[in-house]
Amino acid sequence: MEFKKIENHDSGEKIYSLIKKMFPICRSITGNGVRKTLKIIKNNIPIVIKEIPSGTQVFDWTIPKEWNIKKAYIKNSKGEKIVDFKKSNLHVLNYSIPIHKKMSLKELKPHLHTLPEYPDWIPYLTSYYKERWGFCLTHNQYTNLNDDTYEVFIDSSLKDGLLTFGELLIKGETKDEVLFSCYLCHPSLCNDNLSGVSLLTFLAKYLLKQKLKYSYRFLFIPETIGAITWLSLNEKNVHKIKHGLVATCVGDPGNSTYKKSRIGDTLIDKAVEKVLIDSEQPYKIVDFFPSGSDERQFCSPGFNLPIGSLVRTLYGNFPEYHTSADNLDFIKHKALEDSFKKYLDTIFILENNKTYINTNSKCEPQLGKRGLYQTLGSQKNNALIQDALMWTLNMADGTNSTLDIASKSKMKFKTIKEATDILEKNNLLKNMDSQCTNMDLNFGQLTNNTLQKQ
Amino acid sequence: MEFKKIENHDSGEKIYSLIKKMFPICRSITGNGVRKTLKIIKNNIPIVIKEIPSGTQVFDWTIPKEWNIKKAYIKNSKGEKIVDFKKSNLHVLNYSIPIHKKMSLKELKPHLHTLPEYPDWIPYLTSYYKERWGFCLTHNQYTNLNDDTYEVFIDSSLKDGLLTFGELLIKGETKDEVLFSCYLCHPSLCNDNLSGVSLLTFLAKYLLKQKLKYSYRFLFIPETIGAITWLSLNEKNVHKIKHGLVATCVGDPGNSTYKKSRIGDTLIDKAVEKVLIDSEQPYKIVDFFPSGSDERQFCSPGFNLPIGSLVRTLYGNFPEYHTSADNLDFIKHKALEDSFKKYLDTIFILENNKTYINTNSKCEPQLGKRGLYQTLGSQKNNALIQDALMWTLNMADGTNSTLDIASKSKMKFKTIKEATDILEKNNLLKNMDSQCTNMDLNFGQLTNNTLQKQ
Amino acid sequence: MEFKKIENHDSGEKIYSLIKKMFPICRSITGNGVRKTLKIIKNNIPIVIKEIPSGTQVFDWTIPKEWNIKKAYIKNSKGEKIVDFKKSNLHVLNYSIPIHKKMSLKELKPHLHTLPEYPDWIPYLTSYYKERWGFCLTHNQYTNLNDDTYEVFIDSSLKDGLLTFGELLIKGETKDEVLFSCYLCHPSLCNDNLSGVSLLTFLAKYLLKQKLKYSYRFLFIPETIGAITWLSLNEKNVHKIKHGLVATCVGDPGNSTYKKSRIGDTLIDKAVEKVLIDSEQPYKIVDFFPSGSDERQFCSPGFNLPIGSLVRTLYGNFPEYHTSADNLDFIKHKALEDSFKKYLDTIFILENNKTYINTNSKCEPQLGKRGLYQTLGSQKNNALIQDALMWTLNMADGTNSTLDIASKSKMKFKTIKEATDILEKNNLLKNMDSQCTNMDLNFGQLTNNTLQKQ
Repeated sequence: MEFKKIENHDSGEKIYSLIKKMFPICRSITGNGVRKTLKIIKNNIPIVIKEIPSGTQVFDWTIPKEWNIKKAYIKNSKGEKIVDFKKSNLHVLNYSIPIHKKMSLKELKPHLHTLPEYPDWIPYLTSYYKERWGFCLTHNQYTNLNDDTYEVFIDSSLKDGLLTFGELLIKGETKDEVLFSCYLCHPSLCNDNLSGVSLLTFLAKYLLKQKLKYSYRFLFIPETIGAITWLSLNEKNVHKIKHGLVATCVGDPGNSTYKKSRIGDTLIDKAVEKVLIDSEQPYKIVDFFPSGSDERQFCSPGFNLPIGSLVRTLYGNFPEYHTSADNLDFIKHKALEDSFKKYLDTIFILENNKTYINTNSKCEPQLGKRGLYQTLGSQKNNALIQDALMWTLNMADGTNSTLDIASKSKMKFKTIKEATDILEKNNLLKNMDSQCTNMDLNFGQLTNNTLQKQ
Repeated sequence: MEFKKIENHDSGEKIYSLIKKMFPICRSITGNGVRKTLKIIKNNIPIVIKEIPSGTQVFDWTIPKEWNIKKAYIKNSKGEKIVDFKKSNLHVLNYSIPIHKKMSLKELKPHLHTLPEYPDWIPYLTSYYKERWGFCLTHNQYTNLNDDTYEVFIDSSLKDGLLTFGELLIKGETKDEVLFSCYLCHPSLCNDNLSGVSLLTFLAKYLLKQKLKYSYRFLFIPETIGAITWLSLNEKNVHKIKHGLVATCVGDPGNSTYKKSRIGDTLIDKAVEKVLIDSEQPYKIVDFFPSGSDERQFCSPGFNLPIGSLVRTLYGNFPEYHTSADNLDFIKHKALEDSFKKYLDTIFILENNKTYINTNSKCEPQLGKRGLYQTLGSQKNNALIQDALMWTLNMADGTNSTLDIASKSKMKFKTIKEATDILEKNNLLKNMDSQCTNMDLNFGQLTNNTLQKQ
Repeated sequence: MEFKKIENHDSGEKIYSLIKKMFPICRSITGNGVRKTLKIIKNNIPIVIKEIPSGTQVFDWTIPKEWNIKKAYIKNSKGEKIVDFKKSNLHVLNYSIPIHKKMSLKELKPHLHTLPEYPDWIPYLTSYYKERWGFCLTHNQYTNLNDDTYEVFIDSSLKDGLLTFGELLIKGETKDEVLFSCYLCHPSLCNDNLSGVSLLTFLAKYLLKQKLKYSYRFLFIPETIGAITWLSLNEKNVHKIKHGLVATCVGDPGNSTYKKSRIGDTLIDKAVEKVLIDSEQPYKIVDFFPSGSDERQFCSPGFNLPIGSLVRTLYGNFPEYHTSADNLDFIKHKALEDSFKKYLDTIFILENNKTYINTNSKCEPQLGKRGLYQTLGSQKNNALIQDALMWTLNMADGTNSTLDIASKSKMKFKTIKEATDILEKNNLLKNMDSQCTNMDLNFGQLTNNTLQKQ
């Protein structure tokens, strides 16, 4: 089973390997880079690839022309390529129009972009909606430029074409959907962009093998325009989305950060918070703010969906963000592994959160006669599961969900889940939700071990 | 009047003396130990003693057989009693079945219980619902045992009989009840068990002499099965209980702790919190949790009564808990005295909390012309009672009770009570509750003193 | 424009100069001192002066006799004036009845009041509602008194007369009123009393030149009895008051303090809090309490108006309070300037707080095509106004006011105001309130500067 492999710590490696495969491709919000990336994803999970023509109106926006690029360089008068797209696709201002021209340094300079604070890094810049050309280079390269005549060549095309994205729906027992969205429009950047793409690919792969309560929808889209396009095409079905997360920046070595949905106290917000608490690792939770990634569109006031974003270090808070330093060295197997586990743990809560009523609500039921209580009363009767049984029986009044009980008792969700399983088996709890099969994530072992000790 | 004696600091002594009288008795959840203890209580207050037969079904439970014990010992081959029930009734596993047999150390060992961390203390253990025999001894005794043949004798009986408890109802003006409950099923343990029993005995004794708004019900019951039995017998009258406290662990030298009711923000929760604040002593307030004493039954979801527990150190948080070290040396006169005062102060709030409306609500009334304001205006007009008058007039809009005013103004309840008395006398306040006589706890002196100074 | 002068830092000087002019007058709750002070105010703004006869019933109070004083002294047997009203009008117990008599030191002493802790300061005392006579002197003067025969002379009168106050209504577009109230009943005291009077005079002067949404009512009244009188006369129109502030103690060098309205979370409470946050200076916010100034009457439970008090150091928290040390040296130009700015900033929020709805609520509108977004996407696109535009668009769902958006985004009110202006101009926002002209306080520059940089 997939889950075992996670415990063997190779899901991090797998996610990393897929990132490595996608890394060299020069992506943008349209074009062949996106197509190549989606093909790699499709080798792993059965996504459907959709294409929408340039010029299509999507809410207040228009799908732009398609951009493609073959090569680009700056040559000095000696014919040396001093900046070359082959070495890094970040060297070209993303969406640059074609140019081939000789010019002086003075003429060239307004088209060059650098990061003086990090003189060895190439910045990542785009100009999607205004036609421009430009090069990004390290500040060291820049300061070495002499008064010379330079040959500038960008072999790109900007023409009517298509905007491409991928989508996968994994059907569960109900039509209620959980949305996972990531963006794949950045060129060779790892944490910002590819880490989310790869994690969601493996998350979908895992869920495809499960019996699920919810249906799960995965989006692999260009940022902003892709989200707007998808929402525009699916406006009528958006009400099915009950919970969701935008996945990005899940591979850096920093602690986990959760950015809440605009509503702020939905089940996805509570579930992720509980996952972070139960992880016993440091974490940060921040309120929704309207800059960031595609939660900007999902949480625009006209949609206001219950969608948050579970990342590690927030975009913009690590200096490598939008530079050539966000590369294969920056992201870590362990971080990807841990992020993947937290996404799975969140799904575990969504799938298993239920509301029960104690069938024996007047006084405690006698657990002893059911073999659920240590019969030798002493000062040391605080075993974990015993406590979980007591909390569950006391709180199960039809108003508290499993997640509520876990939060109020400060016990782990899986411990309370285990207690509800035991009590339900003993007819001491009755599920108030409509019946549904649980996803089994192999968390079932604790029970037997714990009770045997008593 | 009783209250004066408290100020003379002898209520602590009295409560202690009664504990001392009850201490030697070997109690359990049934049997003669409980009967003897109830007889001592009955010498002080007119409790009614009730007995329910073994085998009676009470909710999910069955009243167990009655247990009694005459003697018990372990003799070594020299005929020396190395463990003797006469020396401490904790030596016998409570509810041990009878046995008389010679056996090797190896055979004996599984029946011996010790506390390695506290090698001089005897642990307290029970086995009510599984038939077993056993001895509890100090770890030092245990490690001195040689390979020998031991004579084991427990002269106990476990037969169909009765479960015994005591109850007292002190009728007040209304049928609304305040419930005080304690348990008397532990053998020679002081803080856990007897401190609550004795405190409630003297609290009842005091209230019997008062004119009361509420009716007060006192329960002296075996823990768990007693509470379940009482609730089962009184299910239809439970709705009369408006406030309540479970009394235990009220004699140790630690600070006061209040464990909230399951509901968490009822009047009893607010009243006890205010008593603790007004005491100007350190204290702790903890949320309800479903382990503990009989609040587990009173606050089970099917009853969910507004009942908390006012203790000193919480059971389990002092190492002496459930050991021979919870003895007459562990509890202190001063602690019992102080706990008693806090129980009385809580009753004072319950009895005197009222909702008033300012009869002169547009602008302040002119206090000066009623002799309620210092006429010489200066920079030092912040006398305590002056402030209390102002707060009361400003907040008395029919929505704030006396307790609310005291809490919001951060003034003591008795100060605000004093202010409401003065203002009511001057027709500046009108009571919005149904009329009722106040319990006078001699708090009335402050007024005259304070106003004379002006 | 007036506002420019404030930026040139001369509003503090002007407020100070007016205080200086009013300082020497011996005021009380009635009499010629109040009349002279109102005349000075009337030289600046067109207040209406009203007079109500002694004996008039105002709610629970009666307007007292009018008090006037010409001179007062204590002479020793050598004929030396050892205490003289001419030197400080604080020397006479305010509202002293007339007396002219020779007496021993022993006879005199009960009529003398000093401040032993501050032996150089004269205390300020009153006896409005009990007929007395007395002198206030420094403790040093007091300890120098010998056993002698003293001539005591107070040339005052206490006769049926009038209670005088001033009022100004500046009409705005709506009949909804903002009330600003101050008291002018203290003799030569600066921070307590005159600082508020002078600040409100200049605030009214400023508002008289503005186009306003609200109507603004200014009260210049004797404390307590004046507020009660005004409320009694205007009981039926009080419902028009939507927001208000009591102005006093606005000139001392301490930090700003806001005392909330009794309700505690009205718009005036939120507006002043935001002004204090946006000031980037230290500040304190305290809950309503029923001692203090005329908010005691405005916030009595029968009125419960949304009126707070914006001061610097709270009355009673500075030792100079109600002493001769609360003089022209104690108050500072800069503090008056700063207080004036905060009152204006509060009005700016009240006038400009609006509720908008995003006309393009599904996904973000494309700001770029409207020239509102930097077209060169990079890692440094966090310009202040860009953020404000995003926050505003995201929060403008018809439930959040401009102030709400500013508070939730932690951005300054004026920045969000600027963003709403831009977005409204671009038809991206629609105002949900009834149309109204804004007061322009010259805050409009930021926009152009900020957007030019992009």
